[in-house]
Amino acid sequence: MTTVTVWNEYRHERDDPAVAEVYPDGIHAAVAEGLEAAGFDTRTATLDDPEHGLTEGVLADTDVLTWWGHRAHDEVADHVVERVTDRVLDGMGLLVLHSGHYSKPFQQLMGTSCALKWRESGERERLWTVEPGHPIAAGLPESFVVPEAEMYGERFDVPQPESLVFTSWFEGGEVFRSGCCYTRGAGRIFYFRPGHETYPIYYQDEIRQVLANAVRWANREGVEGARPTPTYANTDPVE
Amino acid sequence: MTTVTVWNEYRHERDDPAVAEVYPDGIHAAVAEGLEAAGFDTRTATLDDPEHGLTEGVLADTDVLTWWGHRAHDEVADHVVERVTDRVLDGMGLLVLHSGHYSKPFQQLMGTSCALKWRESGERERLWTVEPGHPIAAGLPESFVVPEAEMYGERFDVPQPESLVFTSWFEGGEVFRSGCCYTRGAGRIFYFRPGHETYPIYYQDEIRQVLANAVRWANREGVEGARPTPTYANTDPVE
Amino acid sequence: MTTVTVWNEYRHERDDPAVAEVYPDGIHAAVAEGLEAAGFDTRTATLDDPEHGLTEGVLADTDVLTWWGHRAHDEVADHVVERVTDRVLDGMGLLVLHSGHYSKPFQQLMGTSCALKWRESGERERLWTVEPGHPIAAGLPESFVVPEAEMYGERFDVPQPESLVFTSWFEGGEVFRSGCCYTRGAGRIFYFRPGHETYPIYYQDEIRQVLANAVRWANREGVEGARPTPTYANTDPVE
Amino acid sequence: MTTVTVWNEYRHERDDPAVAEVYPDGIHAAVAEGLEAAGFDTRTATLDDPEHGLTEGVLADTDVLTWWGHRAHDEVADHVVERVTDRVLDGMGLLVLHSGHYSKPFQQLMGTSCALKWRESGERERLWTVEPGHPIAAGLPESFVVPEAEMYGERFDVPQPESLVFTSWFEGGEVFRSGCCYTRGAGRIFYFRPGHETYPIYYQDEIRQVLANAVRWANREGVEGARPTPTYANTDPVE
Repeated sequence: MTTVTVWNEYRHERDDPAVAEVYPDGIHAAVAEGLEAAGFDTRTATLDDPEHGLTEGVLADTDVLTWWGHRAHDEVADHVVERVTDRVLDGMGLLVLHSGHYSKPFQQLMGTSCALKWRESGERERLWTVEPGHPIAAGLPESFVVPEAEMYGERFDVPQPESLVFTSWFEGGEVFRSGCCYTRGAGRIFYFRPGHETYPIYYQDEIRQVLANAVRWANREGVEGARPTPTYANTDPVE
Repeated sequence: MTTVTVWNEYRHERDDPAVAEVYPDGIHAAVAEGLEAAGFDTRTATLDDPEHGLTEGVLADTDVLTWWGHRAHDEVADHVVERVTDRVLDGMGLLVLHSGHYSKPFQQLMGTSCALKWRESGERERLWTVEPGHPIAAGLPESFVVPEAEMYGERFDVPQPESLVFTSWFEGGEVFRSGCCYTRGAGRIFYFRPGHETYPIYYQDEIRQVLANAVRWANREGVEGARPTPTYANTDPVE
Repeated sequence: MTTVTVWNEYRHERDDPAVAEVYPDGIHAAVAEGLEAAGFDTRTATLDDPEHGLTEGVLADTDVLTWWGHRAHDEVADHVVERVTDRVLDGMGLLVLHSGHYSKPFQQLMGTSCALKWRESGERERLWTVEPGHPIAAGLPESFVVPEAEMYGERFDVPQPESLVFTSWFEGGEVFRSGCCYTRGAGRIFYFRPGHETYPIYYQDEIRQVLANAVRWANREGVEGARPTPTYANTDPVE
Repeated sequence: MTTVTVWNEYRHERDDPAVAEVYPDGIHAAVAEGLEAAGFDTRTATLDDPEHGLTEGVLADTDVLTWWGHRAHDEVADHVVERVTDRVLDGMGLLVLHSGHYSKPFQQLMGTSCALKWRESGERERLWTVEPGHPIAAGLPESFVVPEAEMYGERFDVPQPESLVFTSWFEGGEVFRSGCCYTRGAGRIFYFRPGHETYPIYYQDEIRQVLANAVRWANREGVEGARPTPTYANTDPVE
């Protein structure tokens, strides 16, 4: 069974009543609820847990990690960041959500600034499925709406995605590459844009469908047998 | 000096007074004017010329070919299509403009339907530069507007571009991958979305800048020395 | 259950005793045997069957099609080629094997010549897994040997693969991109190099593992829910 | 005129007589000599220069930086690494040579381990041009030999290259993706495998041709006009 660890900064929800009203048990609870309903073995971890809840043991037992952070990216300890990125290179899937674009693990794995433009004005977002044959698009319509969203706009400073699954249209005139797939080492990474703390986006059916699909994709579902283990060493000739 | 052949179907302009008013000498004249001003050695060719103006000699002497067609794609003779695609594989650059998405050469080089959604209602389009470091984006702003455009919307059924330079936002709610780069054989191909026959888009400065940049890119500007000639044959061991 | 149709030209095996000795029931039988053992619902079809065995009904009921052809590519009827490529764009997986690089469906989907260099001298080939995290590499070692193979050498004139899973080393000094992944429309395509008619390559364990993995990948294993159906038409504004 | 800064660790040449015999003035001198002959404005910088020779001023005035390091990667100061990677994201080209695969700037820009297998036994390497239409392949043959080389073998743990220009064959049975292109931010990066300190590889014509081509490519040769400057900030609606 696929094991998912849902990580959340979990600060906004405890400090800001407007956020607490939308996510009373934290954003992680809403994300985890959707993934459990999709049949995954789901646990949660947060910034203020010891080791941020991401010990060697937890990560070793995690097939796919989801990451939500916003205002406390800098408080994530560098040794935990290394642990996370090492596990990704070793094959763990990683889903980076919304403001996680500025998280340390994502920036480190991308090698770029991951900067973008933004606007908090509760405007309408429409996501278009540009790659309908991609597993992450399964069960989704050709476009769907997030009624109130924080805008993220291009230029999004990331390496060009290996697959671009969704592109967003915003009321205010911007566009954004909202669903971006990457491989780093043996790990698969999916960045998904929607998900601001003041809007109930993680309760929305389409969003939950995307996240469930992305977990399956990031876990290379259907794969039987271990992957090859490369030799990174001084070697004798094979021939 | 870079030699550009500007190809145009050239039917709308002769039959439809509304189009003739915008492009009295044909769309090709407007495209060629912009490319000449950018310093290229430019000629034109149209569907109703003998061999559609695309003889072996003309193509052999063409570094980059631009293609505009719309309602008479089927009238382009298959042997000329082969001649064009062979030259692309052999290294000629190709710029496919607007409704050229359904042209035979583009469909053949892409291997897909190249279908899309559309709407003719003179709505506003804003192109965003998603890859500002790309040569085709040189001299352009981070976004620019085509005041009146025919809408093209995703899903655009093409192979995912090797580089995506521009993405369009439309008033009516759609998005589109508007500037797509491909390599096929030794040739470079750029698809550029704007350019409907009833709007004066090919007179617009930003559009002309994109086309000039794209000609340079498609001609692999700055390259000194011929490219390697692969041996496609039964060969002896090299070692 | 995943349904696979194994297509074979099936001429060498009937005309050439040396080939018949290796593949007495045809190459398709050997390929199908391996895929059945991997748990797929497998049937076969050959060039000399009515409609080449690829009727609308057969293709509609095929999740993944494998293709082996060599000397009779030209005898495949164009309307059947269209039927195959249309089904690929519609979502059917396609595995193109060895000399199938010159088949009509592959050339049409790639848009290039698909040319390469070759040599029939029974030399040693070693395949290296360059993308060990890819599902098609599951269960394989970091490299494995085909003891006697026809050499295929670069330049292989295809669009650059979306993922390159294997690269071959040949005794005679050549290299080759041996496992190439593509998406065209909603369909996934995998080209796999090994498999000459005079060597028992399709009985080899590693080769069978690759083909089974590739079927799963091409069928987008683990996907729940239909994919989005794009509207390719004149549309009203969505906003 | 294109300005190139050739950076070298410059330790082996001073400590090891065998290396000093091949590169008496340092590897940087040999690389710079080739690039000067190709018409670039070339300067050098080494690890033991103040600020490693890579001050803000030097980098601001550098179009393309080449990087050779091997045993002292860890001695490169982190603030200089940041300065280099920031300039790459800002548009400076970067050529990473041979053992530079383990340098801090390359690892940081790739986000992966950049590990590989290796063997120092003076064996024969043959580089195949797999993308003959690429500007970096201009003037090169379809394959060429480095008579004595240190072997580097796959799996090379990097993100899959945006373009793969060369693949190497080695006497001992390995293959390697030897010429890999990337874009990070507005900067272009080329990794080129050949170039060990004990072999006179940087005096070889083909190698010098590749490096000159790569400088032109990394500097986006032929581009007129500045690139767009993205706004990374809280913005007002544009529409």
